[in-house]
Amino acid sequence: MPKPNVREQIVVAGLETLHRRGFNGCGVQDITDAAGVPKGSFYNHFESKEALGVAVLDRYWQICAAQLRLLSDERVPPLDRLRGYFESLAETIAGQGYAKGCLIGNFSTELADQSRLVRERLTGIFAAWTQALETCIRQAQRTDAVRSNLDARTLAALLLSAWEGTVMRVKVDKSDAAFKQFMAVVFTDILS
Amino acid sequence: MPKPNVREQIVVAGLETLHRRGFNGCGVQDITDAAGVPKGSFYNHFESKEALGVAVLDRYWQICAAQLRLLSDERVPPLDRLRGYFESLAETIAGQGYAKGCLIGNFSTELADQSRLVRERLTGIFAAWTQALETCIRQAQRTDAVRSNLDARTLAALLLSAWEGTVMRVKVDKSDAAFKQFMAVVFTDILS
Repeated sequence: MPKPNVREQIVVAGLETLHRRGFNGCGVQDITDAAGVPKGSFYNHFESKEALGVAVLDRYWQICAAQLRLLSDERVPPLDRLRGYFESLAETIAGQGYAKGCLIGNFSTELADQSRLVRERLTGIFAAWTQALETCIRQAQRTDAVRSNLDARTLAALLLSAWEGTVMRVKVDKSDAAFKQFMAVVFTDILS
Repeated sequence: MPKPNVREQIVVAGLETLHRRGFNGCGVQDITDAAGVPKGSFYNHFESKEALGVAVLDRYWQICAAQLRLLSDERVPPLDRLRGYFESLAETIAGQGYAKGCLIGNFSTELADQSRLVRERLTGIFAAWTQALETCIRQAQRTDAVRSNLDARTLAALLLSAWEGTVMRVKVDKSDAAFKQFMAVVFTDILS
């Protein structure tokens, strides 16, 4: 019988390895080595490396959900929530030494054309992420903290794209310059 | 002696193959097969697959330069140039059936941590790209077509990040929704 703790070890090591080296930049052996389990045990738990990719993406999104809750904290004014949320994401990337980037963005560019399963998962994640931003932006528009000439959904989608592009840029630059530019334009121009 | 036309065949096939499948998603053999040359000829022309990656990125950026010239066409008002430029980029991606994405973005997420050579090239490309946008935005600010509360450099950097994130999103969605959202926010809110 497959041991549940072996599966968990593979997911945890898989998340770290796939995030650091990319999906096609490492093999199943690299992941089982990092997990400290025999390579043969992998297929007791996952049908394929692609199936692990989906499990790892789900786990990453679960971890992201903790920060996402900042957007719905009703004790904080909505515009301050948005600012605090992106500052928190930027701190996470800085804490990774500007390496690795965002797994969601990495899988989007690397796998959207190669794996239907991963692409479907990414579609769901982007939809949920956009929704969380949209709800917070709409609340800010109701309090007149954000102007209403564009609908909250369009603004949320652009903010998310701009964020992912910013994380990409930071991974190349190895500096927080792009974060600062993102915060300046988003909170001076776009949401003002 | 290495034949120059073989090198060219490898660069052309390498650009198509690496753009479609990712750097780590294919091998040297896939590229020489696509080029219709013997695998052994590869190393007469390139020291490594990484060296081909750099050559392919340079070629891609050369191709991008044709569109980039839209930004400096003095016969057109600067804000119209910016709009025309992004519309032209969006048409290119739509013409690829929303597949492949932008090679610069793909290599940024996949290779920035793995190849110093590729990362240095990406840094140079982003700097030149930002500079071209910045010059055009500054001209638009001088004619008061774009407000001047933020400097042109900051706006250019954000536009580029937002563009790369938009292309990423389009690759996942396989639709032009994110392009429309980009155009709406950029030309209604950011540059207004």
